[in-house]
Amino acid sequence: MANANQVVEYVQHRRENHLAELKEFLKIPSISTLSEHRNDMKRAADWCAGKMRAMNFARVEILPTARHPVVYGEWLNAPGKPTALIYGHYDVQPVDPLNEWISKPFEPTIRGENIYARGASDMKGQDHAVLKALEAWIKNGGLPLNVKIFFEGEEEIGSPNLAAFIDQNKSRLTADFVLNCDSGIPRPNLPGLVAGLRGLAYFELWVHGPSHDLHSGVFGGSVHNPAQVLAELIAGMHDANGRVTLPGFYKKVRALSKKERAELARTPFSEKDWLAMMGAPQLYGEKKFTTRERTGTRPTLEVNGLLSGFTGEGAKTVLPAKAMTKISMRLVPFQNDNDVEKQLRAYLTRRAPKTVKWELKKLASGPAVLVDNKSKASRAAQAALEQTFGIKPVFVYSGGSVPVVSLIAEKMKTETVLMGFGLPDDNLHAPNEKLHLPNYYRGIEAYARFFDAAAR
Amino acid sequence: MANANQVVEYVQHRRENHLAELKEFLKIPSISTLSEHRNDMKRAADWCAGKMRAMNFARVEILPTARHPVVYGEWLNAPGKPTALIYGHYDVQPVDPLNEWISKPFEPTIRGENIYARGASDMKGQDHAVLKALEAWIKNGGLPLNVKIFFEGEEEIGSPNLAAFIDQNKSRLTADFVLNCDSGIPRPNLPGLVAGLRGLAYFELWVHGPSHDLHSGVFGGSVHNPAQVLAELIAGMHDANGRVTLPGFYKKVRALSKKERAELARTPFSEKDWLAMMGAPQLYGEKKFTTRERTGTRPTLEVNGLLSGFTGEGAKTVLPAKAMTKISMRLVPFQNDNDVEKQLRAYLTRRAPKTVKWELKKLASGPAVLVDNKSKASRAAQAALEQTFGIKPVFVYSGGSVPVVSLIAEKMKTETVLMGFGLPDDNLHAPNEKLHLPNYYRGIEAYARFFDAAAR
Repeated sequence: MANANQVVEYVQHRRENHLAELKEFLKIPSISTLSEHRNDMKRAADWCAGKMRAMNFARVEILPTARHPVVYGEWLNAPGKPTALIYGHYDVQPVDPLNEWISKPFEPTIRGENIYARGASDMKGQDHAVLKALEAWIKNGGLPLNVKIFFEGEEEIGSPNLAAFIDQNKSRLTADFVLNCDSGIPRPNLPGLVAGLRGLAYFELWVHGPSHDLHSGVFGGSVHNPAQVLAELIAGMHDANGRVTLPGFYKKVRALSKKERAELARTPFSEKDWLAMMGAPQLYGEKKFTTRERTGTRPTLEVNGLLSGFTGEGAKTVLPAKAMTKISMRLVPFQNDNDVEKQLRAYLTRRAPKTVKWELKKLASGPAVLVDNKSKASRAAQAALEQTFGIKPVFVYSGGSVPVVSLIAEKMKTETVLMGFGLPDDNLHAPNEKLHLPNYYRGIEAYARFFDAAAR
Repeated sequence: MANANQVVEYVQHRRENHLAELKEFLKIPSISTLSEHRNDMKRAADWCAGKMRAMNFARVEILPTARHPVVYGEWLNAPGKPTALIYGHYDVQPVDPLNEWISKPFEPTIRGENIYARGASDMKGQDHAVLKALEAWIKNGGLPLNVKIFFEGEEEIGSPNLAAFIDQNKSRLTADFVLNCDSGIPRPNLPGLVAGLRGLAYFELWVHGPSHDLHSGVFGGSVHNPAQVLAELIAGMHDANGRVTLPGFYKKVRALSKKERAELARTPFSEKDWLAMMGAPQLYGEKKFTTRERTGTRPTLEVNGLLSGFTGEGAKTVLPAKAMTKISMRLVPFQNDNDVEKQLRAYLTRRAPKTVKWELKKLASGPAVLVDNKSKASRAAQAALEQTFGIKPVFVYSGGSVPVVSLIAEKMKTETVLMGFGLPDDNLHAPNEKLHLPNYYRGIEAYARFFDAAAR
């Protein structure tokens, strides 16, 4: 068996081949949400399975789900060594607005240091990088650990069949740890590892007043307008310091230690760049915390939607019968979506006037994830990143939620390392998605080193 | 020339003929807002003109506007007597939801004391009643005063061409007073006259935050959500006593005198019935005023619409770039839409945080109207109603706005008497619109008596 340096040298000599092959993968328009691409989804799954077969995986299967299949592959020839379950997804986002793309989304085009194509960063580039790292070990005498690959085809449509799939395939998916490649780093030359992901609790709230829309002239002044009540309820959910007022909302929120805050402050972060990325007049948030802390380590409550009465062009003097809001909370570790639901109900019970009725539905939820950065797999990833980039990785608290991570944690009780090489400006889900090629190449190297480190 | 009692006796003997003729008029689906009914609009205008010609009006014209014509008729054979300008409209509302109608909207059907048809109460029944009162005088030797009839075809679409029409036809429309028949009474056996109509100022307010929709996980906690800001702004527009907080909002509002409040309290009004009509859990409004006072004599501010972010089915974790509300105020005499616009701008300037930008547009406006109940025409109407119903009419402060009344007041400087016979439960603009037949017959008599009284 080769050592890690030999494997890294091996992949460094094959960059041209790798890039050519990545382009093949990027040309397949595997848009999971559009039924006219069903056949392309099948082609993309076949393409991934073909690569696994070509590197002599003992078992490669395309496993059906209710919609798009999972590609599963096994290489288990390292007895006594740990088993890694590698997660990726082969589906991509739709491409509209198409006219904003500089080059066509499924004609991968290199400009500068980047390759532009839909799915380049999210996440075919990373699927391919991990496959090439595995291939390099196998071509050089075999992998230092056991590997199960699990590429899903429904990530961009919310993984509707993932929970059932995991339930039905628990023994197949058993592993010592999960390597989730759907992740990124803060800057091109700065490696990072996810330390935490926020959870989610998403609600729809209806306020009902009169039984039907009323004439605002005839009835205005005699009934509590449900849109006004809804506005009052929403307004009361934050105090003047930007804190959420739901009773007990911060009770289980762990305060960051001085050390953690200091570490986080080391993460490169420009408030000016962040503000420019949002295009907002000013930054805003919970007082006494930095923007980095607020987006990564503090819970939030956001209005995602508002609807009531007449919203078309012009004037219609309707006093609406009802008003609706979609509200979601981003949760941090130890918060729980059932708790925040209770807190929201308690708030509404206390604050909603008797002049209206209200109705609350929970639409989606997922717990926050805290990654144990002292675990063996995480330490292996830290070592691999430091060797590849020549600098210690920073730990990143990501504001978003990655449902698959909490699903696997919940159903498999297996810890996850999130290691990927996307960049914040890769235009995910937007026109002109790109992948930074130097990081694609470094990604292959880092994955190769990771397998070595995780096997020890 | 006959006297009023003879004329009333004459119409009492013709009820069957009148009802049969009214049914003809109600069968014409003159829906002004739907272009497929353009020909029906023409038929309804011709039908009205035909009735005027049949009663020997010297001049009957169908005067085009940019959309639907005005029917104009003149009978000016009472030299030295005052001239009445009679306002009505021959267009009706659309009929959907059609499946909620018990009998078809353009197949007039009698059930109990009512005739059911679209436009029966709003306002073909009243157009026809006033025509039959005029006809009765003419058939019995001539009218006691001069009459100009002005029936528009665009009331249900907001009278878009009415102001221009009045400007272009000022001399034609000159009169001593206006009789506006588009009105109602509080209860079947209780006559009423409008003493005041609220005015309107209608706005659209946009709050802009980030330049584009953001991922609520990634960015939540670092930017002020414009939907939240909008909710806070709306919430601040009323205080705990239900009073509008815009600076100076009540400054020009005339306080009702004790006498006026006592008179208003005499108006029959059941809070229980009002609440049942609205189907709301409770009544609500500005403290220290009765429901009747609040809807008729106090200004209000209502949210007519709310829109922001994602409002479809399910969950989308968007942090919206902008949020919109439609807000309107009902104004009472001496308030002015320019003043309230300034007050709203002052409020927004003071209250909107620097984290967002806002934009306010005025979409519609019209002043409040106070009817002089001591005028000659009003006293004639009071006498006619008392003679017909056997009870003095009550004075009604209506919460709604009737733009034509303020338009005529403003452009012609002519005072208006509002006298009509609709009832609060006539299902205007809703399925199963009806007209109470005893009041239709009494309406013909009351109009007949009014012409006599107004001529003296």
